[in-house]
Parts: sequence; structure tokens; C-alpha cells
Amino acid sequence: MARDLRICFVGDSFTAGTGDPTGAGWVGPVLAALRADGVAVTGYPLGVRRETSLDIARRWYPEVRARLRDGTDHRVVLSFGANDVSAPTGRPRVPQERTLDVLAAVLDEAHAAGWPAFVTGPPPAPGDGAQTGRALALSAAMAEVAAARGVPFTDLAAPLATDPSWAEAVRAGDGIHPDVRGYRLLAGLLLPPLRAWLG
Amino acid sequence: MARDLRICFVGDSFTAGTGDPTGAGWVGPVLAALRADGVAVTGYPLGVRRETSLDIARRWYPEVRARLRDGTDHRVVLSFGANDVSAPTGRPRVPQERTLDVLAAVLDEAHAAGWPAFVTGPPPAPGDGAQTGRALALSAAMAEVAAARGVPFTDLAAPLATDPSWAEAVRAGDGIHPDVRGYRLLAGLLLPPLRAWLG
Repeated sequence: MARDLRICFVGDSFTAGTGDPTGAGWVGPVLAALRADGVAVTGYPLGVRRETSLDIARRWYPEVRARLRDGTDHRVVLSFGANDVSAPTGRPRVPQERTLDVLAAVLDEAHAAGWPAFVTGPPPAPGDGAQTGRALALSAAMAEVAAARGVPFTDLAAPLATDPSWAEAVRAGDGIHPDVRGYRLLAGLLLPPLRAWLG
Repeated sequence: MARDLRICFVGDSFTAGTGDPTGAGWVGPVLAALRADGVAVTGYPLGVRRETSLDIARRWYPEVRARLRDGTDHRVVLSFGANDVSAPTGRPRVPQERTLDVLAAVLDEAHAAGWPAFVTGPPPAPGDGAQTGRALALSAAMAEVAAARGVPFTDLAAPLATDPSWAEAVRAGDGIHPDVRGYRLLAGLLLPPLRAWLG
């Protein structure tokens, strides 16, 4: 039976492609590139705006379960943390240690369900040094949680924090989300490790 | 406060854009057209392959509830029936009266939740006259269920059953789903009534 790959992309507004008028975000170009590679892939975009890891923890399992019944190769891409490290009232919405607990629990559940996982963290917030600092620290810690489970992790905060194109794309967007150029940057960072993970 | 429109697109593989290598399906072009109209719209694509109305009935509410918390204008587009009228073992997967019961129940729940709804039915199945006949009959009956609740319904089966471009697009696709041209046909049929519904 031919490989019939199904991937759920679970995340927040960056996964939903908020601010990209084409709606493709980074998930769209990644799926298009995989199809151009000759991979028959079904992608289920499950990004929801404003969600923290705690919100995602509540809904991810039933949503993924409903989508990964057919096919022969079922996988999950997890992308969160941007809202956890945001601090609309002066304090991060979710403390780092709580985000890490959630990540560990979700990865253990995915493993138990037989779904290989891939994790990526929050992008930096241009113009907000404190939030970018929290995104960098959280990403480094998420990488450790993932590595301890043999799960690949891609850090978006570290490469983009010093990339003027990212800052420019966010300025051209709504100030939080980038325009389409920023989503292409995210896709460019994620595609090589996703290809390696898919084998 | 500016209108902040959020629409969940609940459906099956046709809503998921299966067979369109760009991944856009009909939801992508519809959202792009609305944004080009100047509407700030967040679209949540919730199509799942192989699902009948019974599968959709089980998951639609929690999935939509999780997505329609923010924003000022929350709506739901429902699109199902193609798998109900398919008959892989000789008998339709869901009898028509059961599909209609589900549609009525979902519309009543959406109304109670305060989410205006828009409904569309199954496309025809070129090369399978019996299934196309069931799609036509189901669509006519779904239209009545929707009309009784003041909900707009768009029939895809009737206009496409006699359209050679649809048959050609399905032949060029996987035999069930169309290629990208067929998804453009669906978007072309759905965009005018969706625009009218959105006001």
C-alpha cells in the first residue's frame, strides 16, 4: 500500500496564517513543497487564534483523533508558545514551567497514540524585547523537553530574533503577525527539518 | 469596533480540498475573494476526509466552539452529504432521512449558539448515475430543511450534474475529487450566495 501521509498542524494564530491575505500561512507552502516532492500528503490545519498551550492541551487530542483514522502514516506537528509568552496585562499568560509541563504531556500522549511528533516554538516579537527574551528562553527549554523524548524541535525565535526581514514583515503585518513574506520565512525555516523528519 | 468575522467551514474531503495540490480547495479562493472585498475574515477549515453527516455531528460543536470565542461576527458553513450518498458496499452509507435529521439538529444547535449558518450539499459523482441521483435528491431535501429554518442553501449537485467541466475536472483528479479547476468551479458557485449571506 502506498504511503498515505496525514499530518495535523496543531497551533495558534501563526499556524492559522493570521495576517496572510492568501490564507496559506506557513502550512500552505510547506504542504505544497511536500507534494512537489511527490509525497501524497493530507494536511489538517488546526491553528486557533489567541490560544496558549493550555487551550491547545484541551482540544488537540479529540481533533487529531477525528482526523487520523484513515491513511497509513499519521503525524502531528505542534506549534505553540507565542501566546504563552505574551503579557497583555504585564505578566506572561502562561509561566514557562507550565508550558513545558503541557508540552511533555502532549508528547507523551502523542507517543502513546502512535503519532510521531514534530515541535516548533514561538517566533520572536519585534519591538518587544522582554517578550522576545521569553520566546528565546522558552524555545531553548522546549528543545530540551522534545530532545528528552527523541522528538525533533525547530527553534524559530533564535534565527528570527536577529533577522531584519522578520522585523520588517511583522511591521508590514499587524504588528504581531507578519505579512506573507514573514510566513515564507517561517516555511523556509521549517521545511528542511520537516523533510528530514518525514524521511 | 470593526467587524471581525470568523467563519468555520465544517465538512468532508471536498471542504478539505483533497486532490488540490495547492491545498486551497474551494475555501481558499472564497476567503481570498472576501479579503479582496475588504472583509477582515478569519477562516477555520474543518473538513475531514471520508466523513458522513454522522461523523460531522459528533465533532462539529466542540471544534467550532473552540474557534468562535473572539471576534464580533461568528458564522458556520456546513457542507456534507457526499459520503452519505456514496455506496461502497452497494448501500448508501447514510440513508437520506438520517442525513436530514442530522442537518436539522445541527442547524438548531447553531441557532441556539447564536451562529448564523450557511449550508451546501454534495457535488455530483461523474460516471456514477445512481450516486449522482442520490446527491440530487438529498440536495433538494436539504434545501427544504434549511429553508424551513431561514438558512441559505446552495445546491452544487444540480448545476454540476450537467456541467462537462465538472466531469472533466473529476476525471483529471482522482475520480472522486476534482483537480484545481473543479475546486474553482465550486468556489464560483458558492461565492455569490456566501457574499449575499455575509451582507
